[in-house]
Amino acid sequence: MKIAVLPGDGIGTEIVEQAVRVLNALDLKLEMETALVGGAAYDAHGHPLPEATLKLAKEADAVLFGAVGDWKYDKLDRPLRPEQAILGLRKNLGLFANFRPAICYEQLVGASSLKPELVAGLDILIIRELTGDIYFGQPRGRRVSPDGHFPGAEEAFDTMRYTRPEIERIARVAFEAARKRNKRVTSVDKANVLETFQLWKDVVTEIGKEYPDVELDHMYVDNAAMQLVKAPKKFDVVVTGNMFGDILSDAAAMLTGSIGMLPSASLNSSNQGLYEPSHGSAPDIAGKGVANPLATILSAAMMLRFSLNQAAAADRIEAAVQKVLAQGLRTPDIHSEGTTKVGTREMGDAVLKALG
Amino acid sequence: MKIAVLPGDGIGTEIVEQAVRVLNALDLKLEMETALVGGAAYDAHGHPLPEATLKLAKEADAVLFGAVGDWKYDKLDRPLRPEQAILGLRKNLGLFANFRPAICYEQLVGASSLKPELVAGLDILIIRELTGDIYFGQPRGRRVSPDGHFPGAEEAFDTMRYTRPEIERIARVAFEAARKRNKRVTSVDKANVLETFQLWKDVVTEIGKEYPDVELDHMYVDNAAMQLVKAPKKFDVVVTGNMFGDILSDAAAMLTGSIGMLPSASLNSSNQGLYEPSHGSAPDIAGKGVANPLATILSAAMMLRFSLNQAAAADRIEAAVQKVLAQGLRTPDIHSEGTTKVGTREMGDAVLKALG
Ligand SMILES: CC(C)[C@H](C(=O)O)[C@@H](O)C(=O)O
Ligand SMILES: CC(C)[C@H](C(=O)O)[C@@H](O)C(=O)O
Repeated sequence: MKIAVLPGDGIGTEIVEQAVRVLNALDLKLEMETALVGGAAYDAHGHPLPEATLKLAKEADAVLFGAVGDWKYDKLDRPLRPEQAILGLRKNLGLFANFRPAICYEQLVGASSLKPELVAGLDILIIRELTGDIYFGQPRGRRVSPDGHFPGAEEAFDTMRYTRPEIERIARVAFEAARKRNKRVTSVDKANVLETFQLWKDVVTEIGKEYPDVELDHMYVDNAAMQLVKAPKKFDVVVTGNMFGDILSDAAAMLTGSIGMLPSASLNSSNQGLYEPSHGSAPDIAGKGVANPLATILSAAMMLRFSLNQAAAADRIEAAVQKVLAQGLRTPDIHSEGTTKVGTREMGDAVLKALG
Repeated sequence: MKIAVLPGDGIGTEIVEQAVRVLNALDLKLEMETALVGGAAYDAHGHPLPEATLKLAKEADAVLFGAVGDWKYDKLDRPLRPEQAILGLRKNLGLFANFRPAICYEQLVGASSLKPELVAGLDILIIRELTGDIYFGQPRGRRVSPDGHFPGAEEAFDTMRYTRPEIERIARVAFEAARKRNKRVTSVDKANVLETFQLWKDVVTEIGKEYPDVELDHMYVDNAAMQLVKAPKKFDVVVTGNMFGDILSDAAAMLTGSIGMLPSASLNSSNQGLYEPSHGSAPDIAGKGVANPLATILSAAMMLRFSLNQAAAADRIEAAVQKVLAQGLRTPDIHSEGTTKVGTREMGDAVLKALG
């Protein structure tokens, strides 16, 4: 079992370090190889996703990813910016299914900006399509506007698109996931305006017939954004396209109040996957030893479960994280009165200890 | 001063009726003419935006709009569905600037799903571009996929696009609005992925130089969705494209907890405007006399201020609404213990009385 370890930028190195310690403590035969990605790779090799890093990721069974990005790269041309690494990995590995759980841990209910009763017990799963939509659709670019409001003016454009098989496979992923949960899927679209999402809605409806035991409903994206704010617990599995999923999964993560706790997985059709925390590279706190490593540690657990077929080891990690929370240990992002503030490494130590 | 009154479907008729009563009580020379729109127009004339309705709207100085839509029209072909009326009005009247205030009224802080301290005093203004972006971009449709993941498969596609002058004019609207407020503009984009929004960001930055007294910052749409949930009061004016604006303005409205109170305005370059509540047609409560008419009454106030140059009358309406809130009168959507529950008409009566 080979893991490509790509810490990246900002707090990436610190949090991935703790996850690697946890993985090493499990007594599994894991081969881990580290490589540069994002701004760090640009600094060393002039590209955010060097050939060698991509090759390593492709050959591995799974990628453990930290985070990329820093303000200092903002001025670079788009193809050289750190976030292109993550887009390149998704595309080249065909990681079309992004799992973004939004869970509110019992002990952290108070950290949410929502009222406690609205988030206590929250456990929803956002499944975002990750290799299609307006993220990758061609053509795109700048041109002289051919028509519209200001023909002849400078214009920029992008293409949103989905094919039927792309929608079918992500829909199946959502229905299968719902079967293991509360058997409800909400498909989020904008079929009232977009051709792409009329097809989306049609295809999800068709695939839904193969899953009569799963309840399917459809919601416009604007309404979904409202319902997430109003009553997030009404959702079970939410499935949507790449662009809407980007927005909704981040909103859902933030409303738990503890985005520093939320892992994510991005899988292809061979269950090869990339695992990363839901939060970003947080350059403002990088190097200070205060970042929360738990989202990355929980991402490692997802990796064991989804790509490496080691559910028992995943359970152990998740139980250990629950235990340190129960012990009252908190990094600054989730700290509150009456709990013990710890740093990145101490949190890693505590998880290791809790693993037994 | 001519007003086209388009009540529409669902609760539209009930709430617009109250706004019309308020307008009539003002002793202004207002000529109001009512027409069918949405599902009601489809039922009577086979089209959600009949020629006569469009003509009336075009000739009027302003349109007072209720809401459109009902589940019973869901099966119609897209061009005949009620919401096409609103898209058609925006397009034909060139209503490119959508103003969506998200205000949390002091007395209604408790209605928010957010903790009171996060929304007390909230007053942000979302300015959404309304006639461009992926809503109207051509080409769009279904076809055999020419390339991508599944060449040869059935595909649907849409085109996102913005020209420089379209971005310039909405940016100016935002900076002008900010000048009358707290002098801060947050431009929301996805320049890290989309060509369209790289141009957006470039042009907003350029226009920003004409407004050195206004502070400009840029935020990715996924981050904006998070920050709205986490700390909405950090925003002043938010300006964004049609698609992102659709999502963010609804999320922002919902997090005030009282979307039933929020008006909106959609203006063209001659200050002709369409005014409508931020909420929808709510077919589930239509005809029951319980809908909140205040968002529509406040939309009428916006209409007086923006399109009819009657700021004093607008002030009077807004003061009257404040007064009925202070009296403790509440429709069911904003009702809480210790306040008096009233219906649609009673709320209208109370506003009329408060007008003096
Ligand atoms: C960095 C960016 C390109 C990326 C995205 O938009 O997909 C990020 O926001 C995410 O959600 O992983
Ligand atoms: C009804 C629909 C087409 C419309 C939109 O998407 O613009 C609505 O959601 C709105 O925001 O006014």
